[in-house]
Amino acid sequence: MNSAQSKPRLYGLVIDNGLSISPYVWRIRYALAHKGLLCETVSLGFTEIARTFGGRFKTVPVIEHGDAMLAESWDIAEHLDQAFPGHPPLFAGPAEHAMVRLTDAWFSAEIMRKMFLLYVLDIHNAIRPEDRAYFRRTREERLKGRTLEQAAADRESRLPALRDALAPMRAHLSRFPYLGGAAPNYADYIALGAFLWVAGVSTLPPLAHDDTLRAWIDRGFDLYGGLGRDPRMHALFE
Amino acid sequence: MNSAQSKPRLYGLVIDNGLSISPYVWRIRYALAHKGLLCETVSLGFTEIARTFGGRFKTVPVIEHGDAMLAESWDIAEHLDQAFPGHPPLFAGPAEHAMVRLTDAWFSAEIMRKMFLLYVLDIHNAIRPEDRAYFRRTREERLKGRTLEQAAADRESRLPALRDALAPMRAHLSRFPYLGGAAPNYADYIALGAFLWVAGVSTLPPLAHDDTLRAWIDRGFDLYGGLGRDPRMHALFE
Repeated sequence: MNSAQSKPRLYGLVIDNGLSISPYVWRIRYALAHKGLLCETVSLGFTEIARTFGGRFKTVPVIEHGDAMLAESWDIAEHLDQAFPGHPPLFAGPAEHAMVRLTDAWFSAEIMRKMFLLYVLDIHNAIRPEDRAYFRRTREERLKGRTLEQAAADRESRLPALRDALAPMRAHLSRFPYLGGAAPNYADYIALGAFLWVAGVSTLPPLAHDDTLRAWIDRGFDLYGGLGRDPRMHALFE
Repeated sequence: MNSAQSKPRLYGLVIDNGLSISPYVWRIRYALAHKGLLCETVSLGFTEIARTFGGRFKTVPVIEHGDAMLAESWDIAEHLDQAFPGHPPLFAGPAEHAMVRLTDAWFSAEIMRKMFLLYVLDIHNAIRPEDRAYFRRTREERLKGRTLEQAAADRESRLPALRDALAPMRAHLSRFPYLGGAAPNYADYIALGAFLWVAGVSTLPPLAHDDTLRAWIDRGFDLYGGLGRDPRMHALFE
């Protein structure tokens, strides 16, 4: 079977209201849309992941097509460009690929870490009841023994640090419509995925009502037939 | 006169010991070397810049070749790719260009701003005596009335924040030899230029002796015949 001709199947993460919230799954949903690839999606709760893959994978996204089955969003993104060479590339060349990885390293360290601490309790409360004990245990380990409630305490006071950390994006987006320049690239999907993660669960809008990121977020959520639009999403702006 | 066939002249910034320290001039020195372009260099002190250009430019780098004369390192870098199409490109395409600009926005906000506060007094003390009053006045305006000495006070306590802010580079350089991937690109030159700025003046090494950035810094300073090597430079590692 020629894997390039089969329709990929994407395993994602589902929460109690049916939304998909993993920021890493969102990256791949956008990547598939960017490449013009249709896919089947299979939604799993946190505690179904290891069982579904017989322990081979513990996180989603997982993608399956033809004989290939792999996890880790970066491995998947790179694989998609190799497996579907006739489709629009995610990375036009090795320098763009390296630069997007650097952007991811910055965004993960400076933005997503702050988002995790602000929204970890909201995520807990939004996921399926049967997944909450697992989520609490694994995330409180990551919090080095602090509870989810302790991580969320006084979170309003930590909003300014998140907003400040987004300043480089605002500066960039004053020059370009997308992080990738004139057209969106995988850096946009990384950042949009993080905001979609927050929008899926948030009980505290992360951004001021007049944040200049709004135009880019609207543009990004509208991409590919409104891939990021869903009435169940929460407001990102005060 | 065909500007593409003339040898560019680069106006840079000189300090008391003859070193060039502007991080923006360093970007262009690397950019010219990357493109394999020889250039004449003219070194100016801070207070000579406006006079030399009749007030047209107040900062360096300034580049002159043929009929073209322009300032601002980004304008110059983009211009070099247009003016010398037969030479290795700084930007292989629009996405790499946009991604490097985003990296610059991050690096300027999170790294160079911290370096400025740590080293502004060292810069003052290293530049030519006749430039110091001008430097103090313009930089203290930027410091909103604080003195250079106040900005430098307790600076050791701010080293950990600088080192932490470099974590995305360390993560990236555990995967790639350069920020640009397998080969250096303009993102490397931006970051190397900042470290060369510090190395020109520092009386406090910014990095721990075992910082994993060392291999990349060594590789970067060695590029193009050791462009970043000079015995007058100060140690970057404790």
